[in-house]
Amino acid sequence: MIKQSNEVPEETSSLKGTKGCTLRWLIAEKDGAEHYAMRLFELKPGGLIPVHSHDDTEHEIYIIEGTATLDGDENKITVKKDDVIFVKPGDKHSFINNSDKPFKFICVIPTI
Amino acid sequence: MIKQSNEVPEETSSLKGTKGCTLRWLIAEKDGAEHYAMRLFELKPGGLIPVHSHDDTEHEIYIIEGTATLDGDENKITVKKDDVIFVKPGDKHSFINNSDKPFKFICVIPTI
Repeated sequence: MIKQSNEVPEETSSLKGTKGCTLRWLIAEKDGAEHYAMRLFELKPGGLIPVHSHDDTEHEIYIIEGTATLDGDENKITVKKDDVIFVKPGDKHSFINNSDKPFKFICVIPTI
Repeated sequence: MIKQSNEVPEETSSLKGTKGCTLRWLIAEKDGAEHYAMRLFELKPGGLIPVHSHDDTEHEIYIIEGTATLDGDENKITVKKDDVIFVKPGDKHSFINNSDKPFKFICVIPTI
C-alpha cells in the first residue's frame, strides 16, 4: 500500500486541552496493520498537546518539520526536525509549538 | 529518551546486493523498545536495495527526503518525500535511487 500523507483525512485530537493539533492515521488497523500504527501529527503555530501519559502504550516519534518545546518527566527542552523521541509507557509528555511555523512529527503506537 | 538522528551510529545493510545504503537504529530493543523498532535508512545517489521480502515481518515506511523507484509486487513507481508505504509480510519490495540527491526514509519493524 502506497499513499501520499496529505491524502489521508485530517482529524482533530480527542485529548482534552489540545489546541491547534491535527493527526492523520497513515497506517492503521483498517489497512491491515496488526501490531502498530503510524500517525502524522501537526501542531500549528501556538498549538499545544498538554502533559499526559499512557499507562501501557509507548510512542516512537520522529520529527519531520519544525521545532517545539517538549515538557514532561525531563526538563523542558526544545526539539526539532530529525530528532527522535522514545516515550515509554507511563512517561509524561507534551508539545508546545511556540514558533511561527508548523511542527510535524511521526508517532508510532501499538494497536494491541 | 531524546536524541538527534545523526548522532546514532550509521551501519551498512547486511542484505545481499545492497549498494550505497546505510541505516541507523534510532529506537531499538536496547533502548527498551519491546514491540517495534524505528530505523532511518539512507540511499545515496545510485544506491540500491534489491527486491526482497520477509515472511513474517511488516514494514511501516515514511519517506522524509528525496525520491526513488519502488519495485516489487506492484509495478515500478516513483515514491517521494511524505509518501507512506505499508509493506505487509511476504510483499516484495526494493528501492533504487536514480536521483542525484540522497533518499531517506523511516522504516518501523517488529522486534518480536
